[in-house]
Amino acid sequence: MPIGGAEDKGATCRILDTFVEICGKTSAHIVIIPSASSIPIDVAHFYQNIFYRLGVAEVSIIHVSDRQQANLETGLQPLQNATGVFITGGDQLRLISLIGGTRLGEILYQRSLNGMPIAGTSAGASIMSRHMIAFGRSGPQPSQRMVQMASGLGLTHSLIIDQHFSQRNRLGRLLTAVALNPGLIGVGIDENTALIIRPDDTLEVIGSGTVTVADSQGLTYNGIYAAKRHDTFQVQGIDIRVLREDDTLLSLKAV
Amino acid sequence: MPIGGAEDKGATCRILDTFVEICGKTSAHIVIIPSASSIPIDVAHFYQNIFYRLGVAEVSIIHVSDRQQANLETGLQPLQNATGVFITGGDQLRLISLIGGTRLGEILYQRSLNGMPIAGTSAGASIMSRHMIAFGRSGPQPSQRMVQMASGLGLTHSLIIDQHFSQRNRLGRLLTAVALNPGLIGVGIDENTALIIRPDDTLEVIGSGTVTVADSQGLTYNGIYAAKRHDTFQVQGIDIRVLREDDTLLSLKAV
Repeated sequence: MPIGGAEDKGATCRILDTFVEICGKTSAHIVIIPSASSIPIDVAHFYQNIFYRLGVAEVSIIHVSDRQQANLETGLQPLQNATGVFITGGDQLRLISLIGGTRLGEILYQRSLNGMPIAGTSAGASIMSRHMIAFGRSGPQPSQRMVQMASGLGLTHSLIIDQHFSQRNRLGRLLTAVALNPGLIGVGIDENTALIIRPDDTLEVIGSGTVTVADSQGLTYNGIYAAKRHDTFQVQGIDIRVLREDDTLLSLKAV
Repeated sequence: MPIGGAEDKGATCRILDTFVEICGKTSAHIVIIPSASSIPIDVAHFYQNIFYRLGVAEVSIIHVSDRQQANLETGLQPLQNATGVFITGGDQLRLISLIGGTRLGEILYQRSLNGMPIAGTSAGASIMSRHMIAFGRSGPQPSQRMVQMASGLGLTHSLIIDQHFSQRNRLGRLLTAVALNPGLIGVGIDENTALIIRPDDTLEVIGSGTVTVADSQGLTYNGIYAAKRHDTFQVQGIDIRVLREDDTLLSLKAV
């Protein structure tokens, strides 16, 4: 369940409450991973309070500040009986630098594969992709060097997830990302908006914004290789869909 | 079997001859894919003549100049009874723009999975990676933006393959690539040098240069997220090995 950032934390709190429901609400044990943030402890306690307020039975925090910790089984024990994981915002490249290729990364991948719900907001949404947007520039048009890719956690193989999408004018970088990864599906999620990816790969949108899908499976022309540096380039055949709250989409492809 | 480019095509021709042997020599049917090149037809005929000279029974050419062709089953028929595929040099981003996510890309992935040998030189080597170096700058030190990643064919999941390695001074970009993809294994292959990846994941080097392995599985510190733009950054715990002709390495990990 990737969230586009800046989700409502007030009285209604629909997105976080939906996640709590999926995790089992009063019998849930949610683990918060705040290590993408530059103020991880504050952020972790902030979300911990919200989840307790929403009725969650147990909320644990796993913060790692170096890769050794991310490989230490003892610190990862809260994951053993977790019914859900929440990954906070911050910098996705910081988080993957800390946990990519570690035991923590591996456990998240395996548990997700086995059906444990994982939500992430902002950086925590981006990192779910196998081919992850590490950073990039804003703007409506694609240009060859506007986005930097890296490895994410690989919880989804087919989706390249971007966030703060309409608010930060990120269509250009999403189109560039799918041009660099032809055949994959770009997903740009607005603030206070989330995409629920069900085990059967059905996608459902909740929240106040839109989700922009840039599906490159039918890509007919991809001129990114011919562009120089920051030049724009031609692409054809990217299927763009814009989804709103409660819109659902049947599996685009194995995600 | 990724090749670092500029392989010997003269009388001894060890690398290409080894590939021909693996494919079945006088009973081999090799398909050449020259579409990374800006002069694909010339390059294809050049290699076709070499393979015939080395005793190959049948040498076919599959050149696609757009994505529609890469999805057209009729044009891909030579692959059905191929015993090996050779991917030429050129620009790996051009090639993935043409075949990434197409039927041709899918067939190469599936046939490789089922054990058909695939060799590629220069761009044709890079494209074998799942997380592929699309392009980058030269130099010995890693810096945050010196390399651009994209999706490759995914014939190897764990290796990030670079080529013309010592000749073009590419250690910095290989270190940057593994920092962007922690847990993966960078492989820098010199010119006239090749890496044979056997079905049991044993690696063997042949040719006149070296293969530099930058294994980030034991990465202890990764400062790439903290670097700004073209600044260098700190990494620790990347295991560097340099291999020469006839050196072998047991499986580093499932490749």
